[in-house]
Parts: sequence; C-alpha cells; structure tokens
Amino acid sequence: MSKLALFGGTPVVPKPRPLARVCAEYPLAQRFAEYVGAKHALAVGSGTAALVSALFGAGVTPGSEVITVAHTWFCTATSILLVNAVPVFVDVDPETFTMDPAKIEERITPRTRAILAVSLYGQPADYDAIMAVARKHQLPVIDDACQSTGAAIGDRKLGSIADVTAFSFSGKPIVSSSGGMVTTSDRSIYDRSMLGGQHPSFIATQARDEQIWSFASSGGYGHNLRIDGQCAERAYQELERLDAINDARRLNARELTERLHGVPQIRVPVVRQGAHHVFHMYTGLFDGTAVDLTRDEFVDALNAEGVWTLTYVSSANFLKTTSGEIFDAGPLHQRHLFRELARHGRCGPYQFPDGVRPDYSTGSLPVTERLATLEFNIPQRYLNPPFDRRTMDLYADAITKVLDNAGEIREERRHAGRLQRRHHFVVASESD
Amino acid sequence: MSKLALFGGTPVVPKPRPLARVCAEYPLAQRFAEYVGAKHALAVGSGTAALVSALFGAGVTPGSEVITVAHTWFCTATSILLVNAVPVFVDVDPETFTMDPAKIEERITPRTRAILAVSLYGQPADYDAIMAVARKHQLPVIDDACQSTGAAIGDRKLGSIADVTAFSFSGKPIVSSSGGMVTTSDRSIYDRSMLGGQHPSFIATQARDEQIWSFASSGGYGHNLRIDGQCAERAYQELERLDAINDARRLNARELTERLHGVPQIRVPVVRQGAHHVFHMYTGLFDGTAVDLTRDEFVDALNAEGVWTLTYVSSANFLKTTSGEIFDAGPLHQRHLFRELARHGRCGPYQFPDGVRPDYSTGSLPVTERLATLEFNIPQRYLNPPFDRRTMDLYADAITKVLDNAGEIREERRHAGRLQRRHHFVVASESD
Repeated sequence: MSKLALFGGTPVVPKPRPLARVCAEYPLAQRFAEYVGAKHALAVGSGTAALVSALFGAGVTPGSEVITVAHTWFCTATSILLVNAVPVFVDVDPETFTMDPAKIEERITPRTRAILAVSLYGQPADYDAIMAVARKHQLPVIDDACQSTGAAIGDRKLGSIADVTAFSFSGKPIVSSSGGMVTTSDRSIYDRSMLGGQHPSFIATQARDEQIWSFASSGGYGHNLRIDGQCAERAYQELERLDAINDARRLNARELTERLHGVPQIRVPVVRQGAHHVFHMYTGLFDGTAVDLTRDEFVDALNAEGVWTLTYVSSANFLKTTSGEIFDAGPLHQRHLFRELARHGRCGPYQFPDGVRPDYSTGSLPVTERLATLEFNIPQRYLNPPFDRRTMDLYADAITKVLDNAGEIREERRHAGRLQRRHHFVVASESD
Repeated sequence: MSKLALFGGTPVVPKPRPLARVCAEYPLAQRFAEYVGAKHALAVGSGTAALVSALFGAGVTPGSEVITVAHTWFCTATSILLVNAVPVFVDVDPETFTMDPAKIEERITPRTRAILAVSLYGQPADYDAIMAVARKHQLPVIDDACQSTGAAIGDRKLGSIADVTAFSFSGKPIVSSSGGMVTTSDRSIYDRSMLGGQHPSFIATQARDEQIWSFASSGGYGHNLRIDGQCAERAYQELERLDAINDARRLNARELTERLHGVPQIRVPVVRQGAHHVFHMYTGLFDGTAVDLTRDEFVDALNAEGVWTLTYVSSANFLKTTSGEIFDAGPLHQRHLFRELARHGRCGPYQFPDGVRPDYSTGSLPVTERLATLEFNIPQRYLNPPFDRRTMDLYADAITKVLDNAGEIREERRHAGRLQRRHHFVVASESD
C-alpha cells in the first residue's frame, strides 16, 4: 500500500461506486441539429427557456426593443421581459395568424435589437419576407417554433431558417414531459445562448468564445435552463417518430378541411404557399352572425358534442375566474401584466427605460384583436394518428349539428339571459 | 341527432380521445408539505426555480438588497439577480460553513428586503440566531435548503422553520431528474411564489389573492418554472424512502468521522448542536502545512485512490479551463459575473440601481475565502446506503495512505515544477 495510485500504485478502494452517467441532452441535441439541418443545438428545459436562451444568443441587451406579436402564447413576449428588454407588438396576417411582414418597419426604432416572430399552431411564419426586412435593418431574426417542430418552408425545416430558433417539447409535436431546444448555424449565437443558464461544466467545455467561457463559473447569467434528464430521453425517442406522426396529423387535418369547405360560418385553416404546416392545432375562424351564435357558444356546444375545442388566445388556454368560469384574457397586449407595464413603465421585476412606453392600447392591433374573438382550436391530440376518415367525419358532423340546431342555443340564451360557459377543460400536462 | 349534447342530447363523437391526465405535481406538493410540516408547497422545475419563486414569495422588489452568503452554489446569489435585486454577501461560520448570524446586522441597509441563508451540504443554517436578527429588522428569511431535504433543527424539519424554503431534487437527498419545491406556512407568501412562473390554469385555480390572480393570464411574471411531469413522479417515489436513505448516510458519515478523528491534517465535519445533518456532502477541511501538501494535491491523490472527492466551492463543481484543467473559480464574490457587477454596476441582463455597489472585493469575506482553499467534499453518492463500515474504513485508509506517502507527491512536484490536476470529473447528471 505504499505507492500512491496517482503514480501507478494500487487504489485503496478497488471498485469505486460508479460516477454519474452521461447526460441524455448531448445525443438529443446532436440528433435534433441533424434533423432540422442546423449546425448547433442546445437542449433546454422548456420553450420559454429556449426563447430566453435564443434572445441572449441574438445579443438582445437590457432596455432594448424586440419586435414580436401579441397573438401567441404569453411566453413569446415574457421571454423578452425576462432578459429585461421591451416587447414591441406588430399585428399579424389575418389568413395565417403569423407576423405581418408589411407592418414591421413602422415599429423599428433605434432601440430595436431583434425580431421575434412565431410559427404558430404548426405553420411557419413568413420568414422569406420577415428576413428581408430584418436584413435591410441588420436585425437578427428569432423564430418561436415552439408549436411547430417538423414544419418547413419548401424543403427548409424550421430551425434552419431564422438566425436562431426556439422549440418546445411539452405537449407539442414532440410530446415529452417538458423540455425545449435552441438551434442555430451561427457559432457565436450558439455560444451566447448558453448564457441563458447552463451548468458550469457545460459552458466550460462547450463554449469556444473566451468571453462566454468567463461566465462558466456562474452558469452564464445564473438561471438553470437545463433540460430534465428523463425528458431528454423521451424527446429523443419521440424525435424518431416525429415525421410519421406529423404526416398522419396533416392527413387528418386535410380531411377535416375538405369536409368543412362548404360550411359558410367556418373559415378553414389557410396554409401559406410553400409552407409545410404540422397542425399542432387545427385553427379555424367562426363567424356566427348569420345564425346569431357567438364563437364562445359555438365552442361550448362543440365540446359537449365530444370535439375538444379551445379558444386558445382569448382564454389564455384554460384560464378561469376564481368562481370557475372561462375568463376572456384577450391577446397579450390586453392582459394585466402588459397593461401595467404600459401604464407605469414597470411591473413586478420589470422596468422599462425612462420614456420608453410601447403602445399596448386596445385598437393598436386590429387584426389580432379580431382573430382572438373568432378563432377556435382543435388541439393536436384530437388529430393525431392514426389517419382516420371516420373520426374527421364525426368532427365535421358535430360542427354541422351545432350550426343546424343553433336555435336551441338562442332559445336557452333568451331564457337564461346569458349561457354559462361550459368548456370541459383540464389542466394541461406533459402528456397533452 | 337533433338535440344538442349541450342540452342533454347524444354527443356526435361517442368516445372522445382522453384529455390530458392530471399533473403529477399536485400529489407531490401535498405530500412534501406534510413531510416537512408546512402548510403550503409549490412544485417547481429546479432549485433555482424554487429560489426565484421564494424571493417573489418573500416580496423582494427590483433594486432592493438581499443578504446572502458567497460560500455556496452560484444559484443562491444569481436567483437574487434574476429578480433584479442585489446580492449582499456576509461571511460564514468557520465550523459549519453557514451564514454567521453575528455578521448580518452590519450589512443591513434601508434597501434590505430579505435574508437568504443556505443550509449547505445537508446541515441547517443557524436559523434560531438568524431569525432573531431578521425579526428585529422585520425582514423575511428564506432558507436555501436545496442540498438538505430531510435535515432538521431538533424536531423541526427544514421547510417549516424559515418564512419560505427552497428545495432541489436534482442529485440531492431526493434524487430525481430535475425539479424542486417551495414550502411556506404563510398563505400570502405561497400565493406570491406562484408569480415566479406557473401555468395560467394553475395560478387561476390556486391563488386566493385577487392581485395574484390578475397575473394568471401571463403565468405570473411569465417564466416557466413548472416541474417536469416525469420528474415529479420520481420525486414522489423518492420522498417515501428519503428518511431511510438519509439515516444510512448519516451512519456512514459518523463512521468515517470516527476513523478520521486522529488524523492531524483533517478537520472532520462539525455538526451544530441540535442539528440533524443529512450529509449531502461529507465536507472536511485539509491543512497540509505539516506535510507540505496542498489541498488540491491531496484531493487529486484521493481521487486516484478511488474516493471521489470534489473541491466544491473553489472549483465551482466540475469547472475546467478550455484546455481541460480544473479551474479555481473561488467563492461567488470572486467570480467573473460578480466582479463585473461590482466594477460597472451592470453585467449581461442585470443592472444595479445608481450608486448601489455592494462590496465584492477579495478580502471582504475572510472566512469564506479561507474555507474555499481548505475544504474537500465527498458527495452523497459515496456515502449512500447501505451502511457499510468496510467501505468507510477504505476511505479512511485512502486518506491515511495519501498522507503517509506525501513524499511521493513532493518528489513529483520537484521534478515537474507543478503537478497537473487530475480529478476524474464527469458532467453532473440527474442520477448523481
């Protein structure tokens, strides 16, 4: 026992307990980068974590402005707040619900540092047009593709189009228990995206930029945005069958659209020319003027018929009042946090620079505000494989039945003054 | 098919696909609250998420100061930055490595809003003394008990002592794949802690305070701090066997301590009177002056002998240089992010209020700085069940062997100028 093991002697402990196993995030990130056609991928804990990391990657600085949309899940905009920057909303295209490229330039100021568009409901935003505007003003483009893993423009998959792209795996086209991913083909964006919050050992061994490396000892800026290990393993498995699932869902959506084409109150989803839409949600618009039916009445009746249907943006996906009723939150700029920021320039942990007051007023985003009152959304789970013509027929039958019997609802409304909302919502979960 | 299902008719879709299952976080939070003896528990995604939620729960506002320690994992202090507040460091007790209650008052200013102490390595901080100071100044106390689930002072478990407590499940006494928990018995702290970032449906149904409810539509302040679903299930199972595992580890630690009592270079862990230490790490101090051996040389040799040993604070747990060598990061106030904040008042997304410059200078925390150069840490995995006298004997034998053969190291050092560091570190993972 005289010679130290350090110099070739026999170790005192003959069979040390095994060390921690290799993290599941490395193979997932590598495989995901290959899948979307990007050079680099960073696995993170959620879609929000991906957005925050992407914003750091894009070089967004505190007090600067990021142009985004209000017709989306709130994290698109709160991720901008989380890096202490200012969300500036532009309106969306009425056909596809994504950022209207024609309205970007009027919102660009000397403080603008990036454009964060959303590939919503499974459909890519109009990146050819958006990136043309961005290049003209030398702004990086971030794609919030959280709902759209596997979607593409032509043969270019999301994740390889914008300068940096954020994905989510929590009940999205890749169904895992949480998790997300950042992709980019720009090495310096990849390095900076680690600042969002990775383990010191990760940053120290992965970052090439010395300036980024110097933040390894605080895990970047000190959040923990790492992916859960079990989640990463599950996401890896789901990635292998992603295309097959997306394809079957696309067929179901096409079938449903064909059945609904002749229904005058329904505008079926519009797929932009050249876009590969993966239908995280099947989102139509409902105009019940002719039958004197509100969108909310239509959705309630449809849920009762066994077609799970949301009003995604206006109800903030499952929001209820304290007495249990569905609550109409509206698009982002109409929600409490943003109202408070517009009014006081500060709210909770956030503070806008002196004199910076983006326009969050009602009326400032007319298309967004109108769409939120018209859209209805059938979540991916209801369109998932197998491809099943019979079920799609039933969904269309249910819609037709509600419209054909709108008189029953009008009658009830006359009696009750106002119908009680009855969505059969449950709390969202990872298996959604 | 005439009568609408809304009014009792037959639904068109006879067997709708099942909705999302109930989230695993609810039973976990309830069981955890019972376990620690708190009224409320909020399941979150990580220890950092728990700290951020706890800081919001405690009412910490942007620009205010939070008193904490620098001898800890970085997230203790970066969580304060993440709510846009200012970390103010006080020194630690040289025996137990936790906040020195006698040094708190000199750091209190009119900007101070909370005290965030750390129950480090499995040992509770001295909360009787800390809370006496805090009560005098009407400051809430947050316990960072991320490493110390199951630890107690007398018969009071951590989680029921401070005003609000943060736990982690990632390779901690509860071994899960990520995750964490916030506990409190104060209903308004619980409500505010949701602002850190929970799902709208969670805040809307759980918050009682109307002011908190109004932030439901943006998920609080808009981060996603939710726990991973698979992680929550695993944590629930681990909680059932937590006490048994902690108890076996305590026995192993006591055995090792008994074997090391006579070794003059080693100061064994000191357990504070009345504290129930759960030994997430077995942390001793090494003074090699008499044998002319540095702490790092000692640790390298010990690793080679098969005893996995870290220098937790000084090496930031696995930090390496770009060329692969162990990097000495030092305690928090000596790391790049905090140096930059002290120099410029801003760094990355963070900005201190005008004129606020906490003292992060070297020399400001003499005990912390000294301990970081002396401590060595054997992680919990190496002390976990079964209780095994023979293995503890081997660890002690390895330590004795290194000391008895220190001459070999001195000889090598004379030849090589300086020994290359050789920790056999791997990236930390959830199964650690």
